[in-house]
Amino acid sequence: MSTDEQDQWRELGQQLRVDSIRSSSAAGSGHPTSSMSAADLMAVLVGKYLHYDFGNPEDARNDHLIFSKGHASPLLYAIYKAVGAISDEEMLTFRRLGSRIEGHPAPVLPWVDVATGSLGQGLPISVGVAYAGKYLDRLPYHVWCLCGDSEMAEGSIWEAFEAAGFHGLDNLTAIIDVNRLGQTGETMHGWDLDAYANRARAFGWEAIEINGHDVAEIDAAFAKLGNGGGRPTVIVAKTEKGHGVAAVANKNGAHGKPVPDEADAIAELGGVRNISVQVAKPTGDGKPHVFDAGGELSLPKYEIGTKEATRKAYGDALVALGNARGDVVAIDGEVGNSTYSEEFKEAFPERYVQAYIAEQQLLSYAVGFQVRGWRPFAATFAAFLSRAYDFVRMAAVSRANIVLAGSHAGVSIGEDGPSQMALEDLASLRAVHGSTVLYPSDPNQTAELLAQVVDREGIVFMRTTREKTPVIYQPGEPFEIGGSRTVRRTDDDAVTLIGAGITLHEALKAADLLADEGIHARVIDLYSVKPVDQASVRAAASETGAIITVEDHYPEGGIGDAVLDALAAEPGRAIVRKLAVTIMPGSATPAEQLEAAGIDAEHIAAAARELVGSRTPAKA
Amino acid sequence: MSTDEQDQWRELGQQLRVDSIRSSSAAGSGHPTSSMSAADLMAVLVGKYLHYDFGNPEDARNDHLIFSKGHASPLLYAIYKAVGAISDEEMLTFRRLGSRIEGHPAPVLPWVDVATGSLGQGLPISVGVAYAGKYLDRLPYHVWCLCGDSEMAEGSIWEAFEAAGFHGLDNLTAIIDVNRLGQTGETMHGWDLDAYANRARAFGWEAIEINGHDVAEIDAAFAKLGNGGGRPTVIVAKTEKGHGVAAVANKNGAHGKPVPDEADAIAELGGVRNISVQVAKPTGDGKPHVFDAGGELSLPKYEIGTKEATRKAYGDALVALGNARGDVVAIDGEVGNSTYSEEFKEAFPERYVQAYIAEQQLLSYAVGFQVRGWRPFAATFAAFLSRAYDFVRMAAVSRANIVLAGSHAGVSIGEDGPSQMALEDLASLRAVHGSTVLYPSDPNQTAELLAQVVDREGIVFMRTTREKTPVIYQPGEPFEIGGSRTVRRTDDDAVTLIGAGITLHEALKAADLLADEGIHARVIDLYSVKPVDQASVRAAASETGAIITVEDHYPEGGIGDAVLDALAAEPGRAIVRKLAVTIMPGSATPAEQLEAAGIDAEHIAAAARELVGSRTPAKA
Repeated sequence: MSTDEQDQWRELGQQLRVDSIRSSSAAGSGHPTSSMSAADLMAVLVGKYLHYDFGNPEDARNDHLIFSKGHASPLLYAIYKAVGAISDEEMLTFRRLGSRIEGHPAPVLPWVDVATGSLGQGLPISVGVAYAGKYLDRLPYHVWCLCGDSEMAEGSIWEAFEAAGFHGLDNLTAIIDVNRLGQTGETMHGWDLDAYANRARAFGWEAIEINGHDVAEIDAAFAKLGNGGGRPTVIVAKTEKGHGVAAVANKNGAHGKPVPDEADAIAELGGVRNISVQVAKPTGDGKPHVFDAGGELSLPKYEIGTKEATRKAYGDALVALGNARGDVVAIDGEVGNSTYSEEFKEAFPERYVQAYIAEQQLLSYAVGFQVRGWRPFAATFAAFLSRAYDFVRMAAVSRANIVLAGSHAGVSIGEDGPSQMALEDLASLRAVHGSTVLYPSDPNQTAELLAQVVDREGIVFMRTTREKTPVIYQPGEPFEIGGSRTVRRTDDDAVTLIGAGITLHEALKAADLLADEGIHARVIDLYSVKPVDQASVRAAASETGAIITVEDHYPEGGIGDAVLDALAAEPGRAIVRKLAVTIMPGSATPAEQLEAAGIDAEHIAAAARELVGSRTPAKA
Repeated sequence: MSTDEQDQWRELGQQLRVDSIRSSSAAGSGHPTSSMSAADLMAVLVGKYLHYDFGNPEDARNDHLIFSKGHASPLLYAIYKAVGAISDEEMLTFRRLGSRIEGHPAPVLPWVDVATGSLGQGLPISVGVAYAGKYLDRLPYHVWCLCGDSEMAEGSIWEAFEAAGFHGLDNLTAIIDVNRLGQTGETMHGWDLDAYANRARAFGWEAIEINGHDVAEIDAAFAKLGNGGGRPTVIVAKTEKGHGVAAVANKNGAHGKPVPDEADAIAELGGVRNISVQVAKPTGDGKPHVFDAGGELSLPKYEIGTKEATRKAYGDALVALGNARGDVVAIDGEVGNSTYSEEFKEAFPERYVQAYIAEQQLLSYAVGFQVRGWRPFAATFAAFLSRAYDFVRMAAVSRANIVLAGSHAGVSIGEDGPSQMALEDLASLRAVHGSTVLYPSDPNQTAELLAQVVDREGIVFMRTTREKTPVIYQPGEPFEIGGSRTVRRTDDDAVTLIGAGITLHEALKAADLLADEGIHARVIDLYSVKPVDQASVRAAASETGAIITVEDHYPEGGIGDAVLDALAAEPGRAIVRKLAVTIMPGSATPAEQLEAAGIDAEHIAAAARELVGSRTPAKA
């Protein structure tokens, strides 16, 4: 390295600081001081080590630069300006209505892979991208992840360290900007670089400690990469928050706000610059690896009259998808023999990832893989997806396309008890922006729906059932997302029973009981919980006048609420009675659980009798 | 230690194995092999080191024994039998309907502090209990936590290691049962004890590696405790899953099911035993520390006509509670200057805990503190509570009494953008069993409600607003949980506007706009989202015929759905129009955000005009 080069990096670092101050002052908010600490680290990275064609962000060979400390967005945007990706004018639209230059990075910008800003997510997702690079794409791109020191307290960071160490992701470099100060005060470890480096080494990483404001040391650290012997590397850099501006440098209380005097600060940093950086483009003519596939899609078939669990159908259908398409990848949360994703592992071991019992990393693999165009299917018990709820929330902000499969829904799992029962999953996952929530009632239906979600945008959640349930649909029968199936109807239905998954079968049994008493009940399979089939629900309401919803879920936010929402705008609409789990369950057999929770056939029939009876006088 | 003692421990270990087999065979399910690996560890612990009066589980001086690997419940119940807490007969009711001997431990048993079974939660909660012992109760009880090796992959485990190391919790011992095998295969580290020990040491713990089936080594390890120099200790024990029964010992595929031949297995272990263990009782006459307090409750007062943010009122009121009661404790997620829990820190530094940016540990402190009778108030951005959703779910299974405060709700936070906005929190937290969800609209109301939740059972979530909003209620005006406030009404209201938090103020402005046009709108402050005031909602529906709900939240599972649920059973009820956030927001000012999301006064008024207009012909 030459002195000239070092001088250029120093100047670029100052420019990045100045621009971080300018954008946040223009916005009246933002995080200039958290940007300034990492400016020299990023100056050397983009000046010499990053390989990225900013004119072609879709180039598969590009490196990936992910800001796990998303609040340092002014620094990221200052880089985008320096490399010519955005103009100075656009940079100064930071945080304004309609601007792509949002408060925290989001993939409304083509160079941003994923949204960050919820701390501790950028590194696990970087692990997902790096895994894709090494084992799926098989391309030599490098993943660079800028982390804050505060976020090292997040457990998800250590899930990421564990996963990257385990898989030997030497194409991943984490850079910890140890500026000592969090939002409210000093971090647990202050400037104790060893604290971070020793933890990282214990997790199998190479760790390099440097002064993060010495461009020669930074350069030397980056130059060592690739010598980790198959290990990921973390650069632990001692920095100053607000470095370069005395009014804020290394001062508590300067977090998350513009510097007090913009003009003074810029003058202190040597004024506004307009250095243009020529970032190295990726080299070689490598193309992403393609897995052999492309057989016809041949979904599994289940015979009417037999029984099978929808979780088994999920596993079977996923293998069928894997046969048809080489871009399908499965991720397991160490329960593959419960979710049946083990079938995919056996069929396509190279496209299967074991995330172990680390659900935040499970989600992060999925989000990271789809950054590179893979179609991830991540499965665990539906209850344990709650462990990664913030990651699902942020995946929606990332406009990620992922499929989550949650097995063992509801009390009907039986003896294991409430810790293993998903009873809040429909509510929490319906509330995710743009999500699709499916809850199939039959194995053939499961397969048909899974074949559709492979190309669906956004977060798809498929809830599957532990117990074997009767096959009621023919193989190949079509099912639309957003549709429903009226599985029983007559011309004089007095009530409509709406269920999905295991409760559809209880509703069908209830309809049999009621038929014996001369009460005709319409039965609707509401397998698409979001979007919901408003037309069928409304028609049933107006035609039968009374609806009973029944779900293996707590009463809030699930099937019952989806039905009520569909009817909200209808005047004089039907009475709706929601049957759902209102107790805290214990252990019992599946049948006992359904009874204890009041969602079995007998309870449905009783509710129907009551509703129909209560309406009779009014009709008469 | 004598040979006799060692023989007794060995025999007790065999008994615990036999009983784990007996209960799981009786149930037809469960985890005997994961119990058998840890039997010798627990035999020595209960035989010599545990101090616990099983006849008096409420004794504050008792040690705490928490099974983070909750699926090893057969072992825990075998211990309870051996110490005389439960009978052999009750033990054999394992997993049956109505039995306290549930599939995974739950505090339906008085010796169980918290429910486990979602892996990686027992250790962070043990950290909470140990913190309470050292810094709140100031009693010498010890916390023993049995961990599985699979669950070491959970990030929450490392949040716990970090917290315990940081606080020097030498009253905490974690015991890792390294039996090598997870549910589907080998763990990442197999029998590499160093992998766990080195990670623990890097996080500031003392680590001891032993053979977990050698009672002399186990005894020696426990004997070393207290020599950690103020550090917590982890005992990393090499064990065999299914140890002692050749058909299952160290064999993959034997997870989570009864042993194949119960009689053979029991014979191989030397038959059924009925050893009765005299567990040492706690010594000394220590009583839990009591913090000086007991001043009159003097809530903060805000003048009508001024403006204040409900998050500020939360901080102010929490200090008032702390003045009145010594059992109130505050926990911060490193955003205390945003949630205003920093005010509590300043007033009562000894009853304030900084959890740093580790939300799973934040929840675990709360759950651990309430185990010992403290009243925890845990606060962070509402969006980041989603990081700990599984912990909230399990806290409900634990029958925990905790208060969660989530600030910065909704798009109205403004420029920071979607990563910081809670827009799914009402849905996810309403769906938690037995939860209370409050969303105050005014600072005086915030204070009144906070004063009530301090004694409320279950999970309480209070959503607060970042922006300052007008003070509309008098100081001291009473507000009931489960109530609402009709803030505007006339005798000829044509429509009802229902909001809470920031949208109540938009609804009031909309009512002003409508009044200018001669349309009278009732306005309801639905500050208690769960339980909801069904009576007032129903009355408004029948009296005005049309309802508009407006919420700074996604459309699913929030205020609108709570209102629809209240009206579900009403025939011919009002039309309901839900206004909620349907876009993915970006950055903008709070006012711009409300407008862009369609939930500001103008949009409310427009929706009201449309609804009222559409009904006019029907009325005429």
